[in-house]
Formats: sequence, C-alpha cells, structure tokens
Amino acid sequence: MPKTKILASAQDVENAFYEALERADLELMMSIWADDEEIVCVHPGGPRLIGYVAIRDAWRRIFENGNLFDIHISQLSKVTTPFAVMHSVLEEIRLRSKADLMAPVTATNLYVRGAMGWRMVSHHASPVPPLPTETKSEAPKVLH
Amino acid sequence: MPKTKILASAQDVENAFYEALERADLELMMSIWADDEEIVCVHPGGPRLIGYVAIRDAWRRIFENGNLFDIHISQLSKVTTPFAVMHSVLEEIRLRSKADLMAPVTATNLYVRGAMGWRMVSHHASPVPPLPTETKSEAPKVLH
Repeated sequence: MPKTKILASAQDVENAFYEALERADLELMMSIWADDEEIVCVHPGGPRLIGYVAIRDAWRRIFENGNLFDIHISQLSKVTTPFAVMHSVLEEIRLRSKADLMAPVTATNLYVRGAMGWRMVSHHASPVPPLPTETKSEAPKVLH
Repeated sequence: MPKTKILASAQDVENAFYEALERADLELMMSIWADDEEIVCVHPGGPRLIGYVAIRDAWRRIFENGNLFDIHISQLSKVTTPFAVMHSVLEEIRLRSKADLMAPVTATNLYVRGAMGWRMVSHHASPVPPLPTETKSEAPKVLH
C-alpha cells in the first residue's frame, strides 16, 4: 500500500480513513493510525478505546460484521498547527443494504505529523440530532 | 481574571475549563476558548457547535439552567505536539441536587498555543457505557 502517498498530509490520512471505512479494509484502516499507546477512538455510542491494539481489535470486529457503509462527509471545520491538524466533520452514514436509513454523526479527527509522516491519533464520533436542527443558536440537549 | 496564569499550559486551560463548568462561570469559560470561527464544541447528545459566538451562546443557556455539577476527571490519555495538545478524559458528572445520578462521558479536548498563549479549540463530549464496561477488548456498540 502506498503509505508515502496516504500519509503526505492530514487530508490524505482522512481520505484514506474514510476509504478504509467504506471498504471495510482493516489493513488500510490501521495503516493510517499512529502506532501509539495514547491514541484514542470513540465509536458512536461505544466505549472509549485507547491504544493501537484496542483500536485495531474494535475495527476488526466492526468489519467482520460484514456491513458495508456509504459515508458522505461534509461541513469540515479545521484547526491547523505545524505538527497537528484537527478536522471536525459531519458524517452521513448509510448501510448499503438499507440506504434509506441515515445516521448523522459528528466526528472530531486529530492528525499528527511525526517521523513517519501524518497519522491519525484520535477519532471521536458521536450521534448528533438530524442536520436541520444543527444551528448555531440552538440550545444543546446536554448535561453540561 | 489572571489569564496569564490559566493560559500558561494546556493543562492549565483544562483545569480552568472544568472549574468554569463546576462554577457555571460563563466569563471564565469563554476566556479559555480561542476566539476563532473554527472552534468546535459538542455537548453530550447535542448538536455540533462551531465558532466562538455559537459556543458562548450554548454555555450561557446551560449555565442559565441553574444546575450545578460536580465533575470528576479521570483516565487521561494525551498526545502532545509543540503547538497543540490533545487530552482525552473521562468525566463523571453529578448534579449537586442529585449526587446519586452519575453520567459517564468521554471528552476529547484540544488545546492550541497561539500568540495569546494556550486556548481550547475543541471540546467533544459524548456519553459512554458505564465505566466497568470500558475494556480494551470489548466490541463497541456502533454503526461504524
């Protein structure tokens, strides 16, 4: 796999991340994560997973379910620094077997540039209310 | 307010963030966020909020509810770069009026160092299963 290509920028890592997710490609997925004990992955409604081994194990279980998803990414907000880039995106996830079911999710993705190029170090995804209700003036439904 | 003190490091910003949350102190809360249109805040179960104005408005509404919380932060995982630091924490949030009710939340907090010192640029909080179920081998309950 052309790691030199997919790790050339934070955006390239993000593109590969969602490509791996749509293809249920575990090797591609894990090639874009930093091999680090501090990396974090939170799947929608799931527990917080820490470290490369735990994160790989969770993706393996997800991909083994055999479901294939179509994912539309939109509304990018980003913060860029020399060695770290944060992307906040909205994910519209559709099961290919049930394309009429769409789950809106917001994901905060963090990428860090290291000796090996750019890698994902954090993916935090959680369900959000349907998109029409996402407005800057709406009161959040929250505990805090 | 001693901004020079609370903005001296990412950890200092995080300490001030949770202090502001426990005190329902809107001015302290907003003093630790970057004044930027790209900053992101996701409250548990709420919509994604982008930009200083929207984030301030949401915190104002939350604090105006009059609820006071006790928050216990634990299980920090962090990724550090020269200009950006990511903290992943577990928040145990208790309403002071109902201390027996605890909502476990995981939060991904991103801090960036700029000309004005360290500021929060992203806070993504979402509910997680009860802590005992958070193990590195558990299959996440997820769409993806």
